[in-house]
Amino acid sequence: MLRRSDSRKSREKSGDRNRALSIRSNKKESSSSAPRHGFSISSLRGTVQPELSKKLYKLIKSENHLISNYEAAGKERLSIATQLSDWGESTNDDAISDISDKVGVLLSEIGEQEDLYAHNIDDSRAILKAIRNTEKSVQPSRDNKAKLMDEIAKLKAKEPQSAKLVILEQELVRAEAENLVAEAQLTNITRQKLKEAYAAEFASTIERAEKQIMLARHGRRLLNLLDDTPVVPGDQRNPYHHANEARQILNDAEDDLKDWQPDLEEVPSGRGVESGLPSAEQHRYQTPAAESVTGGGSVIQHEPVAAEGSRVSSGGSVTTGPVEPSYAPSEAGTSQVV
Amino acid sequence: MLRRSDSRKSREKSGDRNRALSIRSNKKESSSSAPRHGFSISSLRGTVQPELSKKLYKLIKSENHLISNYEAAGKERLSIATQLSDWGESTNDDAISDISDKVGVLLSEIGEQEDLYAHNIDDSRAILKAIRNTEKSVQPSRDNKAKLMDEIAKLKAKEPQSAKLVILEQELVRAEAENLVAEAQLTNITRQKLKEAYAAEFASTIERAEKQIMLARHGRRLLNLLDDTPVVPGDQRNPYHHANEARQILNDAEDDLKDWQPDLEEVPSGRGVESGLPSAEQHRYQTPAAESVTGGGSVIQHEPVAAEGSRVSSGGSVTTGPVEPSYAPSEAGTSQVV
Repeated sequence: MLRRSDSRKSREKSGDRNRALSIRSNKKESSSSAPRHGFSISSLRGTVQPELSKKLYKLIKSENHLISNYEAAGKERLSIATQLSDWGESTNDDAISDISDKVGVLLSEIGEQEDLYAHNIDDSRAILKAIRNTEKSVQPSRDNKAKLMDEIAKLKAKEPQSAKLVILEQELVRAEAENLVAEAQLTNITRQKLKEAYAAEFASTIERAEKQIMLARHGRRLLNLLDDTPVVPGDQRNPYHHANEARQILNDAEDDLKDWQPDLEEVPSGRGVESGLPSAEQHRYQTPAAESVTGGGSVIQHEPVAAEGSRVSSGGSVTTGPVEPSYAPSEAGTSQVV
Repeated sequence: MLRRSDSRKSREKSGDRNRALSIRSNKKESSSSAPRHGFSISSLRGTVQPELSKKLYKLIKSENHLISNYEAAGKERLSIATQLSDWGESTNDDAISDISDKVGVLLSEIGEQEDLYAHNIDDSRAILKAIRNTEKSVQPSRDNKAKLMDEIAKLKAKEPQSAKLVILEQELVRAEAENLVAEAQLTNITRQKLKEAYAAEFASTIERAEKQIMLARHGRRLLNLLDDTPVVPGDQRNPYHHANEARQILNDAEDDLKDWQPDLEEVPSGRGVESGLPSAEQHRYQTPAAESVTGGGSVIQHEPVAAEGSRVSSGGSVTTGPVEPSYAPSEAGTSQVV
């Protein structure tokens, strides 16, 4: 398996490459392997998420634990760096004192990079929330459509001539139109934000890595200034003459960090508009549902999605415009119950 | 400061470069900035360490916390990777399902690298323990010498003609010889192991970084297979045709990991023997203390130090040989009380 190919020293190599190509859990077994974090208000809250956004809700929470781990690692590194420097001073050995202090400076910067990484994962996590929020907002639209179809089927069986049937079918047509928009927003937002979130997370992984490589290489240069030729009892060590060189290494490290620039293969987004729908000027759509809209211009907006709402008009064309502060409910009225 | 120069987005840049060049705590303030971990048996145990090994004892404990943080991060990454894959499957979108699963594979491998990093830090930590153990074993030698000097001074003042004075002075000469060896072992072990431990830690930082860069770059390639061009409501997405390309990217990632080789500036050690003393064949030493040894060949061994003990003979030459199972105490008898 890929994830096992090179990571643990004692691990046996597996020749079966194909097993590497998916990490999907074998149906409902994944939760047992996830680290447990005990009860908390926020983990109970996950159970009241709509079905559609439950998985991502939990994933976003797990990212939070990951972020905490990196923050803690960064803090611990800083503490260790200071301790190393203090220990070095206490040895009363000029060479060890200077080298340990400067190795400590580099270690603390490595720790700062862990902290920056934690913040960058947090930014990526915020992007995933846009998907989760859209999922959350699409659920009532699906529910409403399903509920109307269910009601119509029941009524047709019981009272096929009921006047209410016409009303319900009008409502269904509107609900289907609304749901078509919602589903389009969902696929658009999901693909855009998934790409964006993980492109950012991979970019920050590369940033941490490239900066820590520079720091660690300078760290090894520093260690080479420490003469560890054994002395015989009673002999004195040669005096330490590398203070300036050591200082120069720190200056080099600082310059390298300042000069660092990301060098990444681009992950371009094909997105047209932030709402998750292309602009109406470029695209017109005709769907059975939209064509059979009977009433005069029912306006459907999905405010939780993004800065722009989308409008379904009776002509079947989609226009996007600024969010209107007032909310125009559909006649069915249930599609916005969250 | 170097450690602040580039790490936090919101941080102000400091023009004072010199402040960057040390992280030494301003005398006894360091403990307040260290993360707290509550009371535990092992943290109380630190208080009964000899003074000489106290700082390193605590540092080694802090490294343990750091290791735990990386282990936890690795586990959380694996959990997130599986969750991402499961979520992708639940979207019923072939493209998202395939890309999320394969991004998950790469993320889980990034997690495995965190775990490997934790293990490598643990190896480096074990090397630091050799310094701490030597520090611990040198403390009684220092104490014994100081105690004898103190006794002699007191006796000289009280009974300058005491016959015991001659005995004590003989003991002091032996203790000084023993201490000279102990201090030489301490400086040799300290420099060698400090270099070795942090050369290893920097090397593993570079290993994690280089491998994660490869994985993250392949991750961004994967994301580019996801078409996020917005669709209009009612339109179908183009079918997903990149399954083979995605699989190839994972194969490339696996090959890259397999082909990875460390490429490091060497940190050579000047060490002669593992005991921390150069071999007797190459070095002879004459010291006032060793020259005035009067008894016949008192044997001093420092078993906690390493696989080889050192022997001080009456001729004043140091030979190293295998540890003898029997322990030959000096006449003073107190130098081995730990």
